[in-house]
Amino acid sequence: MDYYKKSLALHKKLGGKIGTKNKVAIKNFNDLSVCYTPGVGAVSKAIAADKNLAWDLTVRKNTVAVVSDGSAVLGLGNIGPEAALPVMEGKAMLFKQFADVDAVPIVLATQDTEEIIKTVKAIAPSFGGINLEDISAPRCFEIEERLKKELDIPVMHDDQHGTAIVVLAALINALKVAKKDIAKVKIVLSGAGAAGVAITKILLQYGAKNIITHDSIGAIYFNRGNLNESKKQLANITNLGCRNDSPAGRLQCEKGNLAETIKNADVFIGVSAPNILTGEMVKTMASKSIVFAMSNPVPEIMPDIAKKAGAFIVATGRSDFPNQINNVLAFPGIFRGALDGRVKMITDEMKLQAAKNLAKIVKNPTPDKIIPSVFDKSVMKAVAKAVRNN
Amino acid sequence: MDYYKKSLALHKKLGGKIGTKNKVAIKNFNDLSVCYTPGVGAVSKAIAADKNLAWDLTVRKNTVAVVSDGSAVLGLGNIGPEAALPVMEGKAMLFKQFADVDAVPIVLATQDTEEIIKTVKAIAPSFGGINLEDISAPRCFEIEERLKKELDIPVMHDDQHGTAIVVLAALINALKVAKKDIAKVKIVLSGAGAAGVAITKILLQYGAKNIITHDSIGAIYFNRGNLNESKKQLANITNLGCRNDSPAGRLQCEKGNLAETIKNADVFIGVSAPNILTGEMVKTMASKSIVFAMSNPVPEIMPDIAKKAGAFIVATGRSDFPNQINNVLAFPGIFRGALDGRVKMITDEMKLQAAKNLAKIVKNPTPDKIIPSVFDKSVMKAVAKAVRNN
Repeated sequence: MDYYKKSLALHKKLGGKIGTKNKVAIKNFNDLSVCYTPGVGAVSKAIAADKNLAWDLTVRKNTVAVVSDGSAVLGLGNIGPEAALPVMEGKAMLFKQFADVDAVPIVLATQDTEEIIKTVKAIAPSFGGINLEDISAPRCFEIEERLKKELDIPVMHDDQHGTAIVVLAALINALKVAKKDIAKVKIVLSGAGAAGVAITKILLQYGAKNIITHDSIGAIYFNRGNLNESKKQLANITNLGCRNDSPAGRLQCEKGNLAETIKNADVFIGVSAPNILTGEMVKTMASKSIVFAMSNPVPEIMPDIAKKAGAFIVATGRSDFPNQINNVLAFPGIFRGALDGRVKMITDEMKLQAAKNLAKIVKNPTPDKIIPSVFDKSVMKAVAKAVRNN
Repeated sequence: MDYYKKSLALHKKLGGKIGTKNKVAIKNFNDLSVCYTPGVGAVSKAIAADKNLAWDLTVRKNTVAVVSDGSAVLGLGNIGPEAALPVMEGKAMLFKQFADVDAVPIVLATQDTEEIIKTVKAIAPSFGGINLEDISAPRCFEIEERLKKELDIPVMHDDQHGTAIVVLAALINALKVAKKDIAKVKIVLSGAGAAGVAITKILLQYGAKNIITHDSIGAIYFNRGNLNESKKQLANITNLGCRNDSPAGRLQCEKGNLAETIKNADVFIGVSAPNILTGEMVKTMASKSIVFAMSNPVPEIMPDIAKKAGAFIVATGRSDFPNQINNVLAFPGIFRGALDGRVKMITDEMKLQAAKNLAKIVKNPTPDKIIPSVFDKSVMKAVAKAVRNN
């Protein structure tokens, strides 16, 4: 692909896409004495007396670490810290470009859950927030949960929540266009990794009642075999027809593969693998079906095939089709809002509100316009507001 | 002091003295696809196949971490990571201003030796070098030694070696002016912390034979009580008259306090505490005596008092007197040279050569000009050359 060649050439030329910048120059002894010793001693003393002043007087005010262990990078998998570094740099660029956040790429020489937690806790006083990135499931769940509990700065695993926020925003508008009710639609979700779990949770919080999730084996249901902890959790909160104590007793228990469960689904959400959804399957969906095929760069189904098979609304992760579901719509604003509001934790309420604010930016949604462009200037502020004010 | 007020005001205004900078702007989908996905996937793949490519294609090429646990910050002592942050930011500014190195302040929420070592090792793949800063002795010695051994990127504790390099450079020129021979002078050193130990070692490497070191108790000598590991080492390599097996058998064994040992000394080097050296003591030194009083901001003796008592050459750490001995003369060039030369370890030879190169910049040293100004543009390159080419 042309982008590959262009990207390699750019990286060779730049040798690192980001750098540091001094906000004032040090040109004489006065500058040196004010920025560094002896002047800075007064700043250190003030913070030693009241740690909270670090939020006014230091980089902490505007700096986020982008932390990865390189275990689940893009579609490339476990490629390690060095190979993950250019991706984290790219992420840092987006933070700067879209939200004026100073982000520092930190790639780790360990993939041990406890060591990652310890390391992030150890470096945390340098930062105003932690963006976890490209850490594989199920370790990512424990790492994020523990850090959220044990640190007093916002911690967010973007592969989970950034994606979930943007998917919900897109779905809010898609349902509006299709005139369907979140409480009544059947949602089939493919992919039970970091993104799949977080999407499921935010959809339930928003009011979805009928979600069937899938891993590579098939539909996930109560007491199925081969379920790790996070999938067991999914089996508890989705596919409720399979539970005897189901509060939604009238739902069917759905087992088997996608071809079986997709029947009469209103919504398909894919965060899994290329080409797993066929036109034939789309034909069996309910009328005015909604298909989010977000595997990247090759989606679960190509938009033209989905449309031809009758899909009413199609979204992907790609910029060369309408309705791009892209995390860049969420994370810069999330951390901008968190830093500006001195938020200690990014809560479920903030994420829900961020999705609602994001959806609202599209004044008159249509099948080909359910989500704003990443270059829409109003996006970052709308998302930041949801975090800052909640 | 005026600098304190000015510095507090500047920090309040800026809220962090450094930030990040994107080397190219992201203004459209093409930029996004080249800097980030999908294009960056090609860069990650290339590095996954050959980790060394990270040195050409990522921030690693030009980035150094400035790591501190906040245990020995300026003259303020153990003030913790938050209060240390503005100092590390200042250091990062100097890296940028004087050597175009992108430095990232990392302050740690731990002061445990093993945890610090583990943390730095875990984050090391993000950086091209590690500048340890303001970590108290004796922990700093083990932390630096272990990290040098266990990492394949340059690690330097600047409080030790930056200071030592600049002191040696100044002493080379001072001895030249005083027409004295390093092998024959008696050197009395006050302060057996990080800087004192490193200065002693580099002076011995350069050819000094007769050094008497002191801690707050008095002269350090073989089999004295109250010696930690690093001071025991000093007792083994200095004050050799106190050892039966001394290779320099004619030296006297010197015990007692500074007033006693300073007699007939050619050189006093202070990295200890304000006002501990009196004019009376200076009067007992050898002719053409050299006094480096580097306690900051209040030196071991004020220059006018030392001069009046007969000192031939006086240097301090301050910019408002002649002969400022300032680490800024060394560390930017050290890491510039290390990054440019892809140096895996900063060796003793490199440090010695750096001091020699630094001394040579002053073409015709005089009692009031034994060391170049920190704003002398030739300094950084001369130091970098010593590291890059050794």
